[in-house]
Amino acid sequence: MSEKREKLLKELYDTINEISVLGSCVSLLDWDERTYMPRKGSEHRGNQIALISGMAHEKFTAPRIGELINEIIADGLNPDDDSIDAANIRELKRSYEKYVKLPKSLVEETSKTVTMAQGIWQEARQKSDFASFKPWLEKVIGLKQQRAEAIGYKGVAYNAMLDDYEAGASTDDITKVFAGLREPLVDLIARIKSSGKSPDTGIITRNYPVDRQEKFGTEAAKIIGYDFEAGRIDITAHPFCTDIGPGDIRITTRYNPNHFPQAFFGILHESGHAIYDQGLIIDHYGTPCSEPVSLGIHESQSRMWENVVGRSRGFWKFWFPQLRKVFPRQLDDQTLNSFYRAINKVSPSLIRVEADEVTYSLHIMLRFELENMLIEGKLKPADVPEAWNAKMKEYLGIVPPNDALGCLQDVHWSYGSIGYFCTYSLGSMFAVQLWEKALKDHPTLPAEIEKGEFGTLLKWLRSNVHTHGRKFTLDELARKVTGEPLQSKSYVAYLKKKFGDIYGV
Amino acid sequence: MSEKREKLLKELYDTINEISVLGSCVSLLDWDERTYMPRKGSEHRGNQIALISGMAHEKFTAPRIGELINEIIADGLNPDDDSIDAANIRELKRSYEKYVKLPKSLVEETSKTVTMAQGIWQEARQKSDFASFKPWLEKVIGLKQQRAEAIGYKGVAYNAMLDDYEAGASTDDITKVFAGLREPLVDLIARIKSSGKSPDTGIITRNYPVDRQEKFGTEAAKIIGYDFEAGRIDITAHPFCTDIGPGDIRITTRYNPNHFPQAFFGILHESGHAIYDQGLIIDHYGTPCSEPVSLGIHESQSRMWENVVGRSRGFWKFWFPQLRKVFPRQLDDQTLNSFYRAINKVSPSLIRVEADEVTYSLHIMLRFELENMLIEGKLKPADVPEAWNAKMKEYLGIVPPNDALGCLQDVHWSYGSIGYFCTYSLGSMFAVQLWEKALKDHPTLPAEIEKGEFGTLLKWLRSNVHTHGRKFTLDELARKVTGEPLQSKSYVAYLKKKFGDIYGV
Repeated sequence: MSEKREKLLKELYDTINEISVLGSCVSLLDWDERTYMPRKGSEHRGNQIALISGMAHEKFTAPRIGELINEIIADGLNPDDDSIDAANIRELKRSYEKYVKLPKSLVEETSKTVTMAQGIWQEARQKSDFASFKPWLEKVIGLKQQRAEAIGYKGVAYNAMLDDYEAGASTDDITKVFAGLREPLVDLIARIKSSGKSPDTGIITRNYPVDRQEKFGTEAAKIIGYDFEAGRIDITAHPFCTDIGPGDIRITTRYNPNHFPQAFFGILHESGHAIYDQGLIIDHYGTPCSEPVSLGIHESQSRMWENVVGRSRGFWKFWFPQLRKVFPRQLDDQTLNSFYRAINKVSPSLIRVEADEVTYSLHIMLRFELENMLIEGKLKPADVPEAWNAKMKEYLGIVPPNDALGCLQDVHWSYGSIGYFCTYSLGSMFAVQLWEKALKDHPTLPAEIEKGEFGTLLKWLRSNVHTHGRKFTLDELARKVTGEPLQSKSYVAYLKKKFGDIYGV
Repeated sequence: MSEKREKLLKELYDTINEISVLGSCVSLLDWDERTYMPRKGSEHRGNQIALISGMAHEKFTAPRIGELINEIIADGLNPDDDSIDAANIRELKRSYEKYVKLPKSLVEETSKTVTMAQGIWQEARQKSDFASFKPWLEKVIGLKQQRAEAIGYKGVAYNAMLDDYEAGASTDDITKVFAGLREPLVDLIARIKSSGKSPDTGIITRNYPVDRQEKFGTEAAKIIGYDFEAGRIDITAHPFCTDIGPGDIRITTRYNPNHFPQAFFGILHESGHAIYDQGLIIDHYGTPCSEPVSLGIHESQSRMWENVVGRSRGFWKFWFPQLRKVFPRQLDDQTLNSFYRAINKVSPSLIRVEADEVTYSLHIMLRFELENMLIEGKLKPADVPEAWNAKMKEYLGIVPPNDALGCLQDVHWSYGSIGYFCTYSLGSMFAVQLWEKALKDHPTLPAEIEKGEFGTLLKWLRSNVHTHGRKFTLDELARKVTGEPLQSKSYVAYLKKKFGDIYGV
């Protein structure tokens, strides 16, 4: 490498590193706001986050960043090369060119609007009062449309939203993937329904004292690979995982004393996210190659541990006897099979976050379709409740009795996260696609999991997914690791086999 | 006010506000480091704090700050006026002119040195190995001497250290105040010793379950006036109070199941600090007038609630029956008097933070004198253990068996806080001086406290101390509120009366 380029790269990386450190301070401010901050600290917390985020945005969109990127390319670095520097420059160029197009006024107005909208949404949901949220949804949609126009896009404006969460994804591609998923899911749900079987979930809704749930969940998280010397679990209303910097990846959960799966699978899910972040290479902290690639890939890691592993029969072959030791009174009359069936009960329900593996993606498709129509102007915010309920009826055969249990249930739209939902399903699909390949590479995986050993799978995920950072997009990573693009057939086959066995269909 | 001055003030206040917000982010980073941060997050936390602190320092020492201050004064604002703006300009001018003199290299070297020195000190204390800490103490003293030369000072170099914690204080003044304190204390201790009385402290070292200690301590903190909607209590090895911004003032404590006073009086102490911070006027958040004035005044508030109120007989007249309800097994055979005597036992001891009210200031004088000699070059760091032990023998009649229980016990020197210790005693004295005046203004105070009512005292402290922010120095505030400078006679009289009664001397 030329001495000149080395100098330019150093200046660029040093600056980017500072921006990442600023971002990591915002992560802590946010984590604290959601866990321990006293109520009256709220206004000042807003000022702290606004100041640091603004500084980070200003630093990243400074002309010098653009100059450095261009000079490095002019010096001969090809962004399409296979090196780490090339991947960094490619990603930085992409982000820089995107963010520099955003007028400061739009960034500020969006930030203020979504802060307000979240409060309004919270109250609207409590009162199931869509009318009070409607003007804010209109404002958010309007701002997102402006954002898309400012940034620019190929095809439809919704592609600009997708790009924020899943680089390289397009509405067309996702529509196609979902199309391959919808019919098999609807069919499977119908067959499950007509099987007449309905596992007894009373077993998992007995009283499970929270302190023991906490101990058991933490132990499981530790054993699948979440390093607690570089992380911790706290309690929040809405569980999340956050990256506060190298050596500090935290998760949260919520315990329900009368519903064992909620916290346990929540912990496995968030641990999956955390294990991914803990597996990023931190030598180049702050550069794209040390960052997670996309929400879809991130979600594939959480769903891998929560569902593919955590809700499998093999997993509980080892863990059920442990669980019974911790909760003897609750489980002594139960068998591995009755427990396994209870945690995998399929039943169309109103709330996305409580949905089973089979019905889950239908909740996502509904949102994906409505968001598309909203951004394209084909659906007015005012008509969302009606459209929501119609799709619920069509896909799941049930209609929410009110908007709190319908279109007001998720926080995402209030904070402007349009284009986010689909990554949940992409992640679920990709988890199974990765699992198939891991299984091909290591046929002993199921036997290991039955013995409570997760090292081989973790190692495989580390080298095939985690260590790449943002070097590859979801599609590139899928092709590189599994030899084919992201597809739904593996996921469909997995669901058919698993739930076919459980329900005898 | 001229339109020009208004504009200049706005620019200055806006910038200063940003610097304060940055500082408040550092407070959260620091709070989290000491409470919840996972071990492996340590290195990154250092980077976060260094970046934000550096930004704040750079912003504050930018030439534009100096220009604004000068232009505002040139426009006719007299910094010695009585207005809030005048006090702000006076304080900002003082700080600016001080910090701008510090070479960046010295700031950075000091920051790195004290980060290292703290780790070294921690290990040295554990092993009681002064030799390993000695070169770091030398380095710290050297850097502080350089700092004093860079900043400049009147009289001795140690005055420059004092100025960081107690604006306007001088070595001469404090020496005089301490001189008036030393002999009466030594005399009182001797009389207590010769009384032959020794309260039974077995009563407070029985087993006090931590969960009930926590509930009781929190309740007491709430009732004296600590607003928990704008604060919280967490657990740390070294208790502290931190200001994370308006509406967010947090304290920490540590619970010892076999020593009731430790956490309880620790909570009262830190609550006193927090109540002061919660009483600052936040309308001008970020400007000096919304900031605490000095460590001595801060400490007067913690000692007021911890000792003057919290260790008084009247306080326990109300609280002892409550305490007995919470800990019946531990206290049913005890009386208010036996409890009161136990929490006020006087006994020369090795560790400052565990010292009683009478012997406490002797620990401080020892440190004050050694620091003076170290900075003046009259004592070599190598000779500290010997000098320490000689003074312990002279003032308290006991000699530490090792340096861990002697000159290595406090963290302060390792993080460069030379000049800090004396503020503890200034605070203790000022607390009593304030109490005397409050009592003169409100003779019903003792009767109210006996009924568990603290509103009058809190209101008096709010209007006489808290709301002034940094408008007055300790000496100015003392004169303004009590009509005389800070003095030791009230404190001496208070100690003689209180402990004379307890010990019959």
